[in-house]
Amino acid sequence: MSIDPKRLVARIEALGEIGAIPGTTGCARLALTDEDLSGRDLVVTWMRDLGLDITIDGIGNVIATMPGFAAGTPPVMTGSHIDTVGTGGKYDGNLGVLAGLEVIETVIAAGLELDRPLAVGFFTNEEGARFQPDMLGSLVYVGGLSLEDALLIQDRDGAVVGKELDRIGYSGPAPLPGPTPHAFVELHIEQGPVLEDEDITIGVVEGVQGISWTELTLNGQSCHAGTTPMRLRHDPAYVASKIVTFVRDLTGEFGEPQVGTVGAIDLIPNLVNVVPSVATMTVDLRNTNEEVLQLAETKFRGFVAQAAEREGVGVQTRTLARFEPVDFDPRVIDIVEQSAEAAGLTHRRMPSGAGHDAQMFARVCPTAMIFTKSVNGISHNVTEYTEPADLEAGTNVLLRTMLALAETDF
Amino acid sequence: MSIDPKRLVARIEALGEIGAIPGTTGCARLALTDEDLSGRDLVVTWMRDLGLDITIDGIGNVIATMPGFAAGTPPVMTGSHIDTVGTGGKYDGNLGVLAGLEVIETVIAAGLELDRPLAVGFFTNEEGARFQPDMLGSLVYVGGLSLEDALLIQDRDGAVVGKELDRIGYSGPAPLPGPTPHAFVELHIEQGPVLEDEDITIGVVEGVQGISWTELTLNGQSCHAGTTPMRLRHDPAYVASKIVTFVRDLTGEFGEPQVGTVGAIDLIPNLVNVVPSVATMTVDLRNTNEEVLQLAETKFRGFVAQAAEREGVGVQTRTLARFEPVDFDPRVIDIVEQSAEAAGLTHRRMPSGAGHDAQMFARVCPTAMIFTKSVNGISHNVTEYTEPADLEAGTNVLLRTMLALAETDF
Repeated sequence: MSIDPKRLVARIEALGEIGAIPGTTGCARLALTDEDLSGRDLVVTWMRDLGLDITIDGIGNVIATMPGFAAGTPPVMTGSHIDTVGTGGKYDGNLGVLAGLEVIETVIAAGLELDRPLAVGFFTNEEGARFQPDMLGSLVYVGGLSLEDALLIQDRDGAVVGKELDRIGYSGPAPLPGPTPHAFVELHIEQGPVLEDEDITIGVVEGVQGISWTELTLNGQSCHAGTTPMRLRHDPAYVASKIVTFVRDLTGEFGEPQVGTVGAIDLIPNLVNVVPSVATMTVDLRNTNEEVLQLAETKFRGFVAQAAEREGVGVQTRTLARFEPVDFDPRVIDIVEQSAEAAGLTHRRMPSGAGHDAQMFARVCPTAMIFTKSVNGISHNVTEYTEPADLEAGTNVLLRTMLALAETDF
Repeated sequence: MSIDPKRLVARIEALGEIGAIPGTTGCARLALTDEDLSGRDLVVTWMRDLGLDITIDGIGNVIATMPGFAAGTPPVMTGSHIDTVGTGGKYDGNLGVLAGLEVIETVIAAGLELDRPLAVGFFTNEEGARFQPDMLGSLVYVGGLSLEDALLIQDRDGAVVGKELDRIGYSGPAPLPGPTPHAFVELHIEQGPVLEDEDITIGVVEGVQGISWTELTLNGQSCHAGTTPMRLRHDPAYVASKIVTFVRDLTGEFGEPQVGTVGAIDLIPNLVNVVPSVATMTVDLRNTNEEVLQLAETKFRGFVAQAAEREGVGVQTRTLARFEPVDFDPRVIDIVEQSAEAAGLTHRRMPSGAGHDAQMFARVCPTAMIFTKSVNGISHNVTEYTEPADLEAGTNVLLRTMLALAETDF
C-alpha cells in the first residue's frame, strides 16, 4: 500500500494558491487573517469529503478523526499547521497536514481494519509570525497555556487572538486541553541543508533544539542628527546594532549548533535626520543543549545591560517564547526508522533546528517526527521547495509509521 | 521700535495646535499632509490680514511681500518652514516664519518708510522627513533643482510631491526659479546646546555644515532562523548593524564637529524567526569642512563595500541629499552682529549644525542667519522649547537686521 503522490501534490498546490505572493511560488497566510480563514475552509472541506469526524476547539485547532471506532478511543494523530510567515512557502506545515489527509484517504480507500483510528489536525499560529509565542495552538491543546491567557494575546497592531478567532469563525466548542492521542508523529520539511548535503531522503527526528525568544525595547533620547554632539547622544539604534553584532559573535564563540538571529528591528521615529528615541528588536537564540542555551542567555543579558548603560539607554526585556530542548520517544523514533528502512529509503537520525507542534505533543504522548529534504535548505522564504519525489517518500514513511503505531501498545 | 512678544508667542501657540501630539507639547505636520495644509491656511490668513501681496509657486512656497513699492523691487526677505518631523516641536522653522510676520506687522504699524519692501516666506518640505532631499522648496526656488524633477519625488509609501501639492491646493502659478531677493536672513532656534551652555542669547551664524545623506539597500538571503547554520547566512541586518557601529567609530576617529547618524532601519520581513532578506537604512554624515566630509564619505563607502562582501550581501546606494558646507555673506553677518550689539544682547559667531532654507538663498543673494537658544539643545523632539524672552530677543535682532538690510546697497 502506498499513497497517491499526484493527489498529494494537487492539494499542496491548491492550498498554496491561497495567499500566493504574486510573481513568486511563495505564500502569505499569517495566522487568523482572511487568508488563513480561506486556507482553513479549504482543508476542512477536504476533511469533510473524506467523512471524517471534525472537532474545532477554543483556540481554533481543527482535528479530523476516522469514524467508526468506540467513543474516546485515543487516535494515532498526525498534523502540523497551515499558517505561514509573511514571505513563506507552501510546504512548511502544509505538507504535514495534507500528508496526514493523504495517509487517511489511502487507508480508507484500502478498506484496512485498524485497532485505533487515525487523526490529522492543524494547529493555530504555529509560526509565531503574527502572535507570540509560536506553536500556540498545540501548546494550548496539551495544557501548556490556559485558553483564557491565549485568547488575550495581541499582535503588534493590537489585534487580539480571541477576537480574531471569532471574526474568522474558528472559535469552536471542543474542550481544552484536548484529549490525549495514543501517539503523535509529524511529517515536515527539514527547513535546513543537511539531508540535501548528504543526499539522504528521510530524517528520523530525535528531538527539537531549545528556543529562546526575547524582545528588547531600548529607550534613548531623540534629538537632531545635525546639531547634537556625539558625546551627548543616547542612541538606541546604536545599542541595538551593538547587540546584533554581539549575537553573531556569540554564535562564533559557542560554535555549532548554537544559532542566533535578530530578525526584527523597529526605530521610532525612523527618520534620516533624527536620532531615534526608541529601538525595539527581537533576539532568537537556539541550541540542542539546555545548559549551553542558558549560558548563551546569561551572556546575552549581561552584554545588553552593559551596552545600554554605557550609552545611557534604558532597557525593557520581554520573553516572547522559551522552550527547552525536547527529546522524542525512543520507541516512536525506532518505528519511524524502521518504516523508512522498510520503504527502501535512505535515512539518518538528526535533531530539528526549528520548533514544531510535535514537541508540544511530546509532553503528553509518545511522539517523533519525519523530515524530508528542503532544496538548498531554504524555508521561511518564497523560494522554499521540496521535490515531488521527496514529498511522496516522506508521506509513505508517515503512512507506514501511523499504521505501525496503531498496532503498538505503549 | 521693538516687536510685540505676546502677539508672536500667541501665533506660535496657535500654529502649534495644528498637528499637536496628544499628551506632549510637540507637533507633527509632515510636508504636504492634511496637517501641513491646515498650518499653511492659518499662516496665509495672517499674511492676508496684514494686507501683504501673496504669491504661491509651483512647489508650494508661499511668499508675502509688503505692498506699495515699484513692481519688481527686490525685497529684503526672511522666512523658514512650517513642516515638522514626525515627532517635532513648534519652534523649528515656525519661529522663522512667524517672527518674519511679526517684524512686518511691527514695521507697518510704525508707519515706517523703507527703501525696499520686506517679505516673509515659508518653503515646502524643509525637513526632508517625508520627501528627500530636505530644503526642497528653497532649493527649487533658487534654481538648484528643476520643478519638473521635484514634482516627481515620492515618499516611502509612493505618494508623489506633485499630486500631494494638487491634493492640498498649494500648487501655485508663481514662476520658478523665483525672483532674487535683495538679501535674505533667517531666524531659527539653534537646535543644539552651545548658546545655552555659554549663556549667550544670540548666535550670529557664519555658515552651515555640509550634509551627506545616503540610503543603503542591503540584499541578503532570507531563511529560517532555527535551521540555517551561521556559516551559510547572508544576513543584511548584521551588515546594517556593522555599518551603524562603524559610523559611530568614525565620528570618534574624526572628532568634533564630525557627526554621523543612522536614524532609519527597515528589515524585510521583520519577523523574529526569519533572517531578513533586505535591510534598508539611512546614513547622515555632517561636517563644516568639505574635505573632511569627503574623507568621511570615502571611508564609509569603503567599509560598506567590505562588510557587505564579507557577508555575501549586495548593496545599492542612493544619495538622498548632498550639500557642501555653506559660507554666509560677511556683510550680512556683520549686520546681524551689529544688530545684536545694538539691542544690548550677548552674541557669538557660530556655524549651523543643521541645514536651513537660508543656505539655498546664499547661492543667489547676500544671506546670513540668527540663532536663539534651544533649552537642553533639544530639537526634532516633542520636548523642543525656547523661552519667550529668547523668542523676543531673536525677533528683535531680525527686525533690526531687516531694517538695516533695506538701507544697504550690495
